[in-house]
Amino acid sequence: MAKRKSLRTDDCPVARAVDLVGDRWSMLIIRDAMDGISRFGDFQRNLGVARNILSDRLSALVEDGLLAVQPASDGSAYQEYVLTSSGESLFPAIVALRQWGERHLFAPGEAHSILVEKGTGKRVSAMLPHDHEGKVLKATHTVVKKLAAK
Amino acid sequence: MAKRKSLRTDDCPVARAVDLVGDRWSMLIIRDAMDGISRFGDFQRNLGVARNILSDRLSALVEDGLLAVQPASDGSAYQEYVLTSSGESLFPAIVALRQWGERHLFAPGEAHSILVEKGTGKRVSAMLPHDHEGKVLKATHTVVKKLAAK
Repeated sequence: MAKRKSLRTDDCPVARAVDLVGDRWSMLIIRDAMDGISRFGDFQRNLGVARNILSDRLSALVEDGLLAVQPASDGSAYQEYVLTSSGESLFPAIVALRQWGERHLFAPGEAHSILVEKGTGKRVSAMLPHDHEGKVLKATHTVVKKLAAK
Repeated sequence: MAKRKSLRTDDCPVARAVDLVGDRWSMLIIRDAMDGISRFGDFQRNLGVARNILSDRLSALVEDGLLAVQPASDGSAYQEYVLTSSGESLFPAIVALRQWGERHLFAPGEAHSILVEKGTGKRVSAMLPHDHEGKVLKATHTVVKKLAAK
């Protein structure tokens, strides 16, 4: 199989983003890390993914600076994978995918998980892009503009 | 290669979402469709992806109800791929990935594209999840809760 084309030097931020996390397992590892999972075995059990694939994806996420490896917080011999500041900043992307999934990929009344505020238990409300007047923006209201190097 | 595990019946909306769009090309096809691209050859040229991969991803997106096929708007023999309402609703996910990419994947001053409002040219501001009091929510302020079937 040919090596995939790299999008790392693309001038579109979406292309560079999916080059790093445009992979089902990478995104679900980030989701799990946000839920507090940090050990290889726990990721493996929760995702049901093959160990070699998990190992590959964790290494890539560390190399790309989304996860950091640190000694286990309980003093055991385990390693822990924790989100870096860059990895944590993917929260809006995870929320957006979740909210799209909630709305479009479940039958009415079908069981699914929801995201709630820890303190109050209130459901996290829909996150949408807004224009400068506070109106909801759709793709058709926007345009992509190239910005030259400074 | 073993067939990938299906996440389609998972009770996590993030898992179901990445089952459909957790693939670099699928997400970039959706991005291009939001930018107005609709023909096979135009997707192919813009993405630089192999025709068989593009064909496979377009078919899957049609099958999953994110794109619809229709006769060309100019009356020619071409087919056009257009976003369905479900596909259009991925706009916040694309915006979130873009904004993460803009912030974390470019060197200071490096050339990149930005998203602006069509009418005013103003840059689309950061989209973040907020709690019920309007404060920005981080992953650590939230928790995933299972919701039973109704």
